[in-house]
Amino acid sequence: MDKQVFEALSAATLPEKLGGNTVLREKIGPDFSRWSVKEVGDGNLNLVFIVSGDRGAAIVKQALPYVRLVGESWPLPLKRSYFEYHALKRQAARDPGLVPEIYFFDESQALIVMEFLTPHVILRRALIDGRQLPKIGRDLGLFVARTLFRGSDLSMATREKKTDLALFADNIELCDITENLVFSDPYFEAELNRHTTPQLDPIVAELRADRDLKVEAQRLKHLFSAKAETLCHGDLHIGSVMVTDDETRVIDPEFAFYGPISFDVGMLLANFWMSYFSQSGHENAPSARDGMRTYLLDTVEVIWETFRTEFAHLWRTERNGILYQASLFEARNDPFGAEQALDIVIDEIWREMLGFAGVEMHRRILGLAHNADFETIVDPDRRAACETRALKLGRHLAVNRHHIHSLKDIRALAERLQKETSA
Amino acid sequence: MDKQVFEALSAATLPEKLGGNTVLREKIGPDFSRWSVKEVGDGNLNLVFIVSGDRGAAIVKQALPYVRLVGESWPLPLKRSYFEYHALKRQAARDPGLVPEIYFFDESQALIVMEFLTPHVILRRALIDGRQLPKIGRDLGLFVARTLFRGSDLSMATREKKTDLALFADNIELCDITENLVFSDPYFEAELNRHTTPQLDPIVAELRADRDLKVEAQRLKHLFSAKAETLCHGDLHIGSVMVTDDETRVIDPEFAFYGPISFDVGMLLANFWMSYFSQSGHENAPSARDGMRTYLLDTVEVIWETFRTEFAHLWRTERNGILYQASLFEARNDPFGAEQALDIVIDEIWREMLGFAGVEMHRRILGLAHNADFETIVDPDRRAACETRALKLGRHLAVNRHHIHSLKDIRALAERLQKETSA
Repeated sequence: MDKQVFEALSAATLPEKLGGNTVLREKIGPDFSRWSVKEVGDGNLNLVFIVSGDRGAAIVKQALPYVRLVGESWPLPLKRSYFEYHALKRQAARDPGLVPEIYFFDESQALIVMEFLTPHVILRRALIDGRQLPKIGRDLGLFVARTLFRGSDLSMATREKKTDLALFADNIELCDITENLVFSDPYFEAELNRHTTPQLDPIVAELRADRDLKVEAQRLKHLFSAKAETLCHGDLHIGSVMVTDDETRVIDPEFAFYGPISFDVGMLLANFWMSYFSQSGHENAPSARDGMRTYLLDTVEVIWETFRTEFAHLWRTERNGILYQASLFEARNDPFGAEQALDIVIDEIWREMLGFAGVEMHRRILGLAHNADFETIVDPDRRAACETRALKLGRHLAVNRHHIHSLKDIRALAERLQKETSA
Repeated sequence: MDKQVFEALSAATLPEKLGGNTVLREKIGPDFSRWSVKEVGDGNLNLVFIVSGDRGAAIVKQALPYVRLVGESWPLPLKRSYFEYHALKRQAARDPGLVPEIYFFDESQALIVMEFLTPHVILRRALIDGRQLPKIGRDLGLFVARTLFRGSDLSMATREKKTDLALFADNIELCDITENLVFSDPYFEAELNRHTTPQLDPIVAELRADRDLKVEAQRLKHLFSAKAETLCHGDLHIGSVMVTDDETRVIDPEFAFYGPISFDVGMLLANFWMSYFSQSGHENAPSARDGMRTYLLDTVEVIWETFRTEFAHLWRTERNGILYQASLFEARNDPFGAEQALDIVIDEIWREMLGFAGVEMHRRILGLAHNADFETIVDPDRRAACETRALKLGRHLAVNRHHIHSLKDIRALAERLQKETSA
């Protein structure tokens, strides 16, 4: 093994370190002394550079052996870059055009060179700004349906699926983050937690004393850890999506793991509901963002309906895996048997998805990793009012998930929460 | 790599090939020219030798690169021996004394040398002979509770669990056998199927036209392939158990895989129900085996109740994994929250277990791998009568599993089937 020693890049060292790379020279420009480098990483974990030159630009993303936000006291393995690379390759094959193109991967340097997306912005930022992106509902609905269906035993050769399951099972540390920060820490006084205090103290106490909620959160953790159904993105919130009015791209799948189909879908929808409740923290006058609120709830419905429709389409046209085989149904003059099974599978995804959405809403307000939708609301009273509504909807979804029939019902509930508790 | 080339042993070559092994010489006798070797493999897959000498005896089990029963036309990888070895090691740690002791493992020769169990007989054989073993219910109940609890995220460090998950994910070909032979083939006219014909033809046609049953069988396959909850034995029928009146040993875990806790339990109970229905094919006079029948249904109840009680005991005393953490319940003065979660987990195991039991009963009568309980009933009419009852109970369990509350109800149903259809 002549594995190179890992060295973190900097804007200053990057051109020299990567200037010999043929692919980069072709993308950026042959003379690396003319490359310009800007460090833009605003995430919690990694270094991200925009490198530009005469011919064009590229993103260089490098993992660090620790959590960037916290420092060397929280080590995190470099191999997350390896999982991100493998997830991006698979997503690119399963829903072409929805993830950035990879130019180059260096495992020992934990470094991925990929397409520079411009003028794309982070979807979360756009929604905070009140922008209505016309295409995201459909694009994201298709993305989850295609990547999640095609990474499962509904579609893959089972040998290939089991090999991938083993490969991604090694993404232990990043799964561990989700296992703790999403499903457990928010529900007791864990060290890393924080919340808007003292405004939220009463509801936080109430939620942490809520036995049904705690049990459901752990049931969902049980699903997360045991239901190795498909290759999930693993961190599919609206900070992992880049957009223009015309284009949607999904980035940052370093949390990729084999988990429930419902997980990505639930986390995604939760982020739209949080954006919905955060809008009143960003509007200049009451009702100023009514249109945005309608847009966000509409988008939730578009994502789910697109997911459902595309999943059903793939079920009918690409169900070539070991599950629900055509040899038992279509080939036996029983296509309706396959439709019966589809209803059951979708129903189960729906029930699980609601649960994952519920705990995602909690952890973003009670746990370690908050999101900018709420965090950028400066007035703590106003922020707490927004957060309270999200906490209530989250509790309802997590605990009541087996009895909720439609997104229409959830829309009505969200709108009622928004109205009742408005100042 | 200086991996040795695989060479199948024979009774004639074994002493010379293994005579240099220190562990074997110690167990069997130092002079290998005095070893006596008997090939006793009656399974479908492997070579099994009893090797005895001046000091004692041992079992030498060697995998072949094909299915022994079928021949070289059905290749099967040698690495199943590796999975068997690793499963035996883990089972020995999780329920000490219940699996044979391993003396030696040679990966390249796919060869496990282990304890020679004497005067143990195969449990299936004993039950066909009408023997009532007093200890098996409790022993097997404890075995499933301990191995399945302790191999899961309820108990293990999750890093270790994920590493094992990856290790066993490579047992692709043996999982493939179960995936096809248990969950799919019985429900359509698959090439390898056979059944008692023409007597069973009408009920076979009925079952293969039964949409709800086919959908349930595939739901169960979905669970088998996606619910990577614990390390299952994978083939826990009554041919994988060796017994005396005092001792119970579980053998042959080469099908080991990460699957649902319910899988081993369901397959095990199914085999007792099949034994129950087979008894009338073996009795000399009507009612001659009434006592045996009562014993078998009692044993089902003892296994399940022991499993349930021991699982609950481990839940309360060894729940040290990432799921349902004490930090959320006991440590928060909410031990009853953990009890609520336990009820939910057991309820789910129950519902799944019934389903797996149902399809196991079908595949043993409709599929490729039949069992001796029925096969040794020479008169096809008599055999078909026994098999029909088992098929009916299997269908009931698989399809109605969410609505069955107790083993008492199943006992009543089994007894009614036995009575109604007796000649």
